[in-house]
Amino acid sequence: MTIQSVLEFADNQRGDNLNALIEFLRIPSISTLPQHQPDIERAANWLADRMRSIGLDRVHLIPTAGHPVVYGEWAEAGPQAPTMLVYGHYDVQPVDPEDEWISPPFEPTVRDGNLYARGTSDDKGQLFAQVAAAEAFLRAEGALPVNLKFFVEGQEESGGDLGPVIEQHSALLACDAVVISDDCFLNAQTPKIATGVRGCAYMEVEIQGPRQDLHSGGYGGVAHNPLQVAVEMLAALHDEQGRVAIPGFYDSVLPLPEDEREAWGRIPFDQEKFRQQEVGAPALWSGEQGYSIRERIGARPTLDIHGIRGGFTGDGQKTVIPANVVIKVSMRLVPDQDPGEIARLFEQRIRQLAPPTVQIQVRTLSRAYPAVVDHSAPAIQAAVAAYRQGFGMEPVFVRGGGSLPVVANFIRLLQVPVVMMGFGLPDDNLHSPNEKFNLDHFYGGINTSIHFMNNMASL
Amino acid sequence: MTIQSVLEFADNQRGDNLNALIEFLRIPSISTLPQHQPDIERAANWLADRMRSIGLDRVHLIPTAGHPVVYGEWAEAGPQAPTMLVYGHYDVQPVDPEDEWISPPFEPTVRDGNLYARGTSDDKGQLFAQVAAAEAFLRAEGALPVNLKFFVEGQEESGGDLGPVIEQHSALLACDAVVISDDCFLNAQTPKIATGVRGCAYMEVEIQGPRQDLHSGGYGGVAHNPLQVAVEMLAALHDEQGRVAIPGFYDSVLPLPEDEREAWGRIPFDQEKFRQQEVGAPALWSGEQGYSIRERIGARPTLDIHGIRGGFTGDGQKTVIPANVVIKVSMRLVPDQDPGEIARLFEQRIRQLAPPTVQIQVRTLSRAYPAVVDHSAPAIQAAVAAYRQGFGMEPVFVRGGGSLPVVANFIRLLQVPVVMMGFGLPDDNLHSPNEKFNLDHFYGGINTSIHFMNNMASL
Repeated sequence: MTIQSVLEFADNQRGDNLNALIEFLRIPSISTLPQHQPDIERAANWLADRMRSIGLDRVHLIPTAGHPVVYGEWAEAGPQAPTMLVYGHYDVQPVDPEDEWISPPFEPTVRDGNLYARGTSDDKGQLFAQVAAAEAFLRAEGALPVNLKFFVEGQEESGGDLGPVIEQHSALLACDAVVISDDCFLNAQTPKIATGVRGCAYMEVEIQGPRQDLHSGGYGGVAHNPLQVAVEMLAALHDEQGRVAIPGFYDSVLPLPEDEREAWGRIPFDQEKFRQQEVGAPALWSGEQGYSIRERIGARPTLDIHGIRGGFTGDGQKTVIPANVVIKVSMRLVPDQDPGEIARLFEQRIRQLAPPTVQIQVRTLSRAYPAVVDHSAPAIQAAVAAYRQGFGMEPVFVRGGGSLPVVANFIRLLQVPVVMMGFGLPDDNLHSPNEKFNLDHFYGGINTSIHFMNNMASL
Repeated sequence: MTIQSVLEFADNQRGDNLNALIEFLRIPSISTLPQHQPDIERAANWLADRMRSIGLDRVHLIPTAGHPVVYGEWAEAGPQAPTMLVYGHYDVQPVDPEDEWISPPFEPTVRDGNLYARGTSDDKGQLFAQVAAAEAFLRAEGALPVNLKFFVEGQEESGGDLGPVIEQHSALLACDAVVISDDCFLNAQTPKIATGVRGCAYMEVEIQGPRQDLHSGGYGGVAHNPLQVAVEMLAALHDEQGRVAIPGFYDSVLPLPEDEREAWGRIPFDQEKFRQQEVGAPALWSGEQGYSIRERIGARPTLDIHGIRGGFTGDGQKTVIPANVVIKVSMRLVPDQDPGEIARLFEQRIRQLAPPTVQIQVRTLSRAYPAVVDHSAPAIQAAVAAYRQGFGMEPVFVRGGGSLPVVANFIRLLQVPVVMMGFGLPDDNLHSPNEKFNLDHFYGGINTSIHFMNNMASL
């Protein structure tokens, strides 16, 4: 098998690959909106047909509690060859505000070397690069250098939990490594391999004070205002040093290894540019003292308030003491914090802070485990080499701040490393109007995936 | 003139008065919501028509910066008779949460001797009792015992300032006393004459953090969450002793006179019943230490949070760091606090608390002066007698906790006593779902108003 023929095939196939991706993108497979259920099915079937047409076997839909997973494989590399599982998702985010799109979200349009449409970068385009890489091997050489499995879900954007499905099908999904292309470069010159995802515990606290809304004229000063209780409790969840003030919260946090910390410190980072261009606030928060910005995003746990419901928030004025207030808070977690244990500590702290003037309910809305991948794992090193070969660039290792529950599920349930090898750019407008995917990154992603499979075979 | 014929007329008129009030209540004259502007006009015109139909003269709408005042008078009692000005308001509070109303807020419904609808007690029903009392005199006797003026505004619930209008029309409004029926009994057995109103400064603080909403996965821990800023600032506005923590806030607060404090102490007050039946919370707030519950409501200044807008407050979860948060806060003031000065101190405190990570705007939405009335004034004594005659009950003097900016304006600008003679009950659910007005109190209020006019004539 010569890799050169495979790369040449992929090069000649550029136009066909672009056209096929455009067809895939035209299907508005928005997973959170029930009216798009038929589009979800169309997208799943389109992808299954594509897998069959390029020569994958056992292509079928795996039912889940939500939308189906599309599965396909090629298992003829022999028992000595490693097995790789490609994860991706065929569903997309909603498109509102739709009037801010320069070209319609489901009419893919090329401008200035970028392909614009919902799902280009997140994740249809990145996923399709993996499919196109497999096709290039099968058409040019009639074989893949590894055993390959595709596991492509349809509810990544609607927060469904795939843990039970992965557990149920663990024999089918058995592999030596998982690869996910659903992320972006650090910047245009630097690919990034994410070696961690944060976990999450999303909590809701309901504070019930008076039986009904009261007038502050008649009851201010004697009825304890649940909004007052809310702000005092919430303010008490951080200490003066920017740390989360929940007893036990940091107990299972593993320190960031010194070598990783040093490597992160060497990655160029323009704090003022980050503040101006990404955050756009007058100043950045000093946050948890003793940690750099990158460390605070990826390697330290945080707590954020997302909303406080209750009282009057319209224009004008209403002097109400609300009967009931609902607080939404989430905590981002790092290894080895357990989201269930953190939810328990949070509830314990809230109950400790709650005054006797109110009744409290604490609910856990979702939980996700954090995960890290050892960057010395051979699969990770195969990805490093693939970026050099496919893009001519040296990747860096960074831990991501977001939560990808599926990553932790693969690591925990399949006991394998997960390679987060993204091809997007930071300004791809994921979840926003005018989502795009750079075409050089699309074609470079196909080549990098070809190299990655080849490198995996020689491990 | 015999008062007996007037009272008899009013008794026979009960059904008609109830039906007319129901008509008035059907008009959703919510003054804070711009979409109800046409309803405000309908309510003003309905009231003007009613005044004309009962025989008042010079009925017209007085334009203001906001909604018009409805004016009407009867000036034929002669120069020797005293002149009484009745103040009320035809606008009502918003109705949200609408789904908690047992019967729709603008479909008045009688249940268990109570009339349920938005505005029944606050203030259409109480105001209408005064109109019905005037009608009874004019129809039964063809004359009133006093010169009477009605001055009924349409923006009491939206905090418009009537000071300039009263000042401009001070000749038209000249009188010997103002009477206001926009308050409630102390309890079902005890009418209350309010000898004070608290002032108010209603503030809005806008906190601008990031340029746009951010994802807590990517920016939690480095972008300062404006909701975090909000809760910390708000929590810092009270100290551990329940006092308002704004430097200078208490500087001009006059101590409550010892004799008034003792008289209040003698009024029976069942704290547990108040907690259970009026507040309905698991416990009362200890509030400002060193003051009784009644003192904290009527004679001490307070600060309440009314709403915190920003982020995600719907069902489910969204991990947003909002770009922008708006806080609504009001402070109730007592003599001699000046609302303008208090607003300035509030803004100064907020700016002192604001971190450099956000931009702050502070807006004053409304201001009202506090006021007290000397309970030895003859008009007050006429009201004491009227309650004995109309309800067969002995009233007590208490300072009210609410703010009626107009009371301070009448006292300051017309130099007359203001008689706050309310007919409602403490559980009337003002500003809340299921507002009601007890029908015995409606009819008793009409009789008491008849007696009051009669008593005023013999001063």
